[in-house]
Amino acid sequence: MGTRQLDLGCTFRHQAAWPTAALLHVVPAVPTDGGDPAGRRNPGIIFKDEKWTLEPQIEIHPYQDAFGNQIQRFTMPQGVSTVSYSVRAEVPDELDAADESAPEIPPTDLPDDTLVYTLASRFCHNDVLSGQAWKLFGGMEPGYGRVAAICDWVWNYLAYTTGSTTFTSTSTDAFLTGRGVCRDFAHLMITMCRALNIPARYAHGYLPDMDVPPLPTPMDFHAWVEVYLGDRWWTFDPRHNARRKGRVLIGVGRDAADVALITTYGAPWLQLMTVTAQEPV
Amino acid sequence: MGTRQLDLGCTFRHQAAWPTAALLHVVPAVPTDGGDPAGRRNPGIIFKDEKWTLEPQIEIHPYQDAFGNQIQRFTMPQGVSTVSYSVRAEVPDELDAADESAPEIPPTDLPDDTLVYTLASRFCHNDVLSGQAWKLFGGMEPGYGRVAAICDWVWNYLAYTTGSTTFTSTSTDAFLTGRGVCRDFAHLMITMCRALNIPARYAHGYLPDMDVPPLPTPMDFHAWVEVYLGDRWWTFDPRHNARRKGRVLIGVGRDAADVALITTYGAPWLQLMTVTAQEPV
Amino acid sequence: MGTRQLDLGCTFRHQAAWPTAALLHVVPAVPTDGGDPAGRRNPGIIFKDEKWTLEPQIEIHPYQDAFGNQIQRFTMPQGVSTVSYSVRAEVPDELDAADESAPEIPPTDLPDDTLVYTLASRFCHNDVLSGQAWKLFGGMEPGYGRVAAICDWVWNYLAYTTGSTTFTSTSTDAFLTGRGVCRDFAHLMITMCRALNIPARYAHGYLPDMDVPPLPTPMDFHAWVEVYLGDRWWTFDPRHNARRKGRVLIGVGRDAADVALITTYGAPWLQLMTVTAQEPV
Amino acid sequence: MGTRQLDLGCTFRHQAAWPTAALLHVVPAVPTDGGDPAGRRNPGIIFKDEKWTLEPQIEIHPYQDAFGNQIQRFTMPQGVSTVSYSVRAEVPDELDAADESAPEIPPTDLPDDTLVYTLASRFCHNDVLSGQAWKLFGGMEPGYGRVAAICDWVWNYLAYTTGSTTFTSTSTDAFLTGRGVCRDFAHLMITMCRALNIPARYAHGYLPDMDVPPLPTPMDFHAWVEVYLGDRWWTFDPRHNARRKGRVLIGVGRDAADVALITTYGAPWLQLMTVTAQEPV
Repeated sequence: MGTRQLDLGCTFRHQAAWPTAALLHVVPAVPTDGGDPAGRRNPGIIFKDEKWTLEPQIEIHPYQDAFGNQIQRFTMPQGVSTVSYSVRAEVPDELDAADESAPEIPPTDLPDDTLVYTLASRFCHNDVLSGQAWKLFGGMEPGYGRVAAICDWVWNYLAYTTGSTTFTSTSTDAFLTGRGVCRDFAHLMITMCRALNIPARYAHGYLPDMDVPPLPTPMDFHAWVEVYLGDRWWTFDPRHNARRKGRVLIGVGRDAADVALITTYGAPWLQLMTVTAQEPV
Repeated sequence: MGTRQLDLGCTFRHQAAWPTAALLHVVPAVPTDGGDPAGRRNPGIIFKDEKWTLEPQIEIHPYQDAFGNQIQRFTMPQGVSTVSYSVRAEVPDELDAADESAPEIPPTDLPDDTLVYTLASRFCHNDVLSGQAWKLFGGMEPGYGRVAAICDWVWNYLAYTTGSTTFTSTSTDAFLTGRGVCRDFAHLMITMCRALNIPARYAHGYLPDMDVPPLPTPMDFHAWVEVYLGDRWWTFDPRHNARRKGRVLIGVGRDAADVALITTYGAPWLQLMTVTAQEPV
Repeated sequence: MGTRQLDLGCTFRHQAAWPTAALLHVVPAVPTDGGDPAGRRNPGIIFKDEKWTLEPQIEIHPYQDAFGNQIQRFTMPQGVSTVSYSVRAEVPDELDAADESAPEIPPTDLPDDTLVYTLASRFCHNDVLSGQAWKLFGGMEPGYGRVAAICDWVWNYLAYTTGSTTFTSTSTDAFLTGRGVCRDFAHLMITMCRALNIPARYAHGYLPDMDVPPLPTPMDFHAWVEVYLGDRWWTFDPRHNARRKGRVLIGVGRDAADVALITTYGAPWLQLMTVTAQEPV
Repeated sequence: MGTRQLDLGCTFRHQAAWPTAALLHVVPAVPTDGGDPAGRRNPGIIFKDEKWTLEPQIEIHPYQDAFGNQIQRFTMPQGVSTVSYSVRAEVPDELDAADESAPEIPPTDLPDDTLVYTLASRFCHNDVLSGQAWKLFGGMEPGYGRVAAICDWVWNYLAYTTGSTTFTSTSTDAFLTGRGVCRDFAHLMITMCRALNIPARYAHGYLPDMDVPPLPTPMDFHAWVEVYLGDRWWTFDPRHNARRKGRVLIGVGRDAADVALITTYGAPWLQLMTVTAQEPV
């Protein structure tokens, strides 16, 4: 199996009225191939040539949040400031891992650290939608196939509609209106899995148009789902409903509230955001 | 300053149709008087004579969740089962700690591990209510006094009304209807604090009627709020709006979704729940 | 075709702290067999022996509301008061009328006075659920059969669950939770019809257990749906999904907000409510 | 007292994929100076030179809806079509009528046809916000002054924010977020009045910048509130919180769901909408 190269990165330009605390969450997760069940982030990927460009010079303080993510913390200065990040990734030339024989784990046997991903969260209302989940999927054979069926159902159920939802839209809103963007696709799939007692979490990162027709829209970050089956987390992408190449994880959380790309404590004006995820030209 | 004795405990009796995974969260947090900012749980309290009664015999597996809480995990057997817990606590004969000079910490300087408590969560919708928070409290002098003013406002704003809310009610529901129980009082206060960028979290535990007139209702668990000011978490109780004696913390989380007293993966029938929190008779 | 006799009626006993305005909506609609499209209420039914018992003596003022309903208006006196109503109805011994050939009328051709029943209302959120309606039913052949399919779908989709909803629950709540009582079944069916531009309204009245096994629960008022097809309103009952005998209409409106059985301007305590709808014993 | 001249009117240009039923609600209400309580629409105003321009030629069918409004009903043809309406109004040179001595009418004495305006509706959730209404205004002296206090409160409470709400936003959304446009100001004021058993309804029409500084934004339709006090409906404008000259009523309803400017049964694309309301230049 060969590998392929990817250029990843992003630029944020803000104008702030005063010095503003900010959390940036755009650096790919450190690869781990084994270890604890919550791990296995970006297995087999090698990162190099990481580069930050900060104008003006800003000191960045990295820390690890409660979900194991690497967050870059800094104080956005008054006025205009720009943060650029880029990295070269060498990724396996293969699709997202899948194993149709991976079993659902009964709640009695789930690892302790997966249990938080069975609870309702800000945007994933499994407490409200549990009746629907059991009606739709309760009669299916448990296992990877059932989770794939949920993914397939979400992909069919929701119409991808730019601008249809806001930053406070929840999985119940998506269920009601039948519309959403990748964030909403992920929230609805997570909700259905949790209602069935299957740990599911929100994942975001870079997804290049690799061996697929390029989308006409500008490159953006992408959100998908990780589900715990067997002894690890598996990637599901309900917005595309297809295994893909070149997916690079930034981080995970209970939903989008936990893993915002950028969190600012104040209201700086975002003047510009660009994202890069492509093979070198 | 002397100490006083408390008998604490609870009993849960369930009937389950099949073996059911369960998480119990009723054991007081291990006392810590110093150390990390997230600590200082139950400072100065000594626990002894801890006792479990399980019928039938059930193996309990303790683990620590993502918020530092001690959870008791077990499999509820088919049929009727009873779990009883009791402990003797020697508590300082003093009110909840308070320090009116404790400052709010600007977001730029907050400890990393407090940041998760500034984000919106399942029941605390600071993303929706931020406009209200700034209108009501934005003009006040930051600090302990402002947080106390929020506590006072919640206490006045909400009418304590048994049965007015359900297990999916949020802080926006409480804000709309003006009614709630201790859970809702806590959620609304947390929401207002977070909207102002002040870390706030949900706390639950035992609160005896100590040096206050006893309530006519049966003893129950209680929920309150912890707010990070200065270099530690401080207790605020918006349901009572008063400092109290004998408060014993079980655990903390982002809201009630994180710290359910009991979580069951299935639908066993709760036949009986009793709570004890009183001075020995 | 023969006729059969029914005893209909109800009793309300209230305790009021002060004289309280009240609107009672329990008298069967005056039969009309022809005339305007909004009419045809209780066709072929003959009412006699109407009787009111009021303790203490209360003057009742009848008026017709904006939906053509007969409302009894009175001032509930301070203290305990009882209102009883009874009437004998001679009803055709036949099922709810149906005509599978009745066509949907294009919005361009709908009678003016049916248009209000295409708009969203307090509990029927067709503006939110229009996407779902078109996905589920947009591809079906228009006409009576499509409306019957909506009725069938609601009956399958919702689980009849006493106590699952409150007096502010909407059709979106029913859609989310999959649970409801007859009021919610009606609201969800109305919502789907309106989303497809088919006039639909809320109907309530008496429904005896006639030629069907009696329900074990006490007799209560019932809510169903009327849909405009061809040149008249047709009865659909999504809670039972069956044509029935002996149905007697009290009134219609946009949803339950318009046709409350009793509306009180104040908060008198409802001590007792009984409903009669049966063949004479 | 003199009179002044106003040019009123509007233009809608649509592109429709097929012939589409449409309801237009832009013609000023016929003036009535006396008569029934629900009347007194546009008292003292004289309309002349009414003019319609329709491209292509479209037949318009006027009808009166359940709220006494004049609606223009037509079928929008396939392709691009334009509807223009203009009228000259001679209006009294005086402010909105007001009478601080107008009393609230107890529910027992309200005219029958005002009662529908005490019920909850699609966007006015007085059933949810009744607790807030009584807490805020329950202790005030009933009468015109209390209603003016509600108007004043709404004006202070909500921040006028273009784009903050959508076409499904309700009075509870406005109450939560503290933001809205004129539609939301009206819904929140109506909600508070109804919760206190005061009939209140949604009004929309033309409001020129007459003897006030012109707004920098393009002229648009405006929404306000009518409240029943004494023996008639009075105008309150919570968005401006000031009596104004030249206000011309189009119609009234329970909320914006009842009195949409244009209702289309289908999804034609609105290419252009302009509104005129000014003194002749």
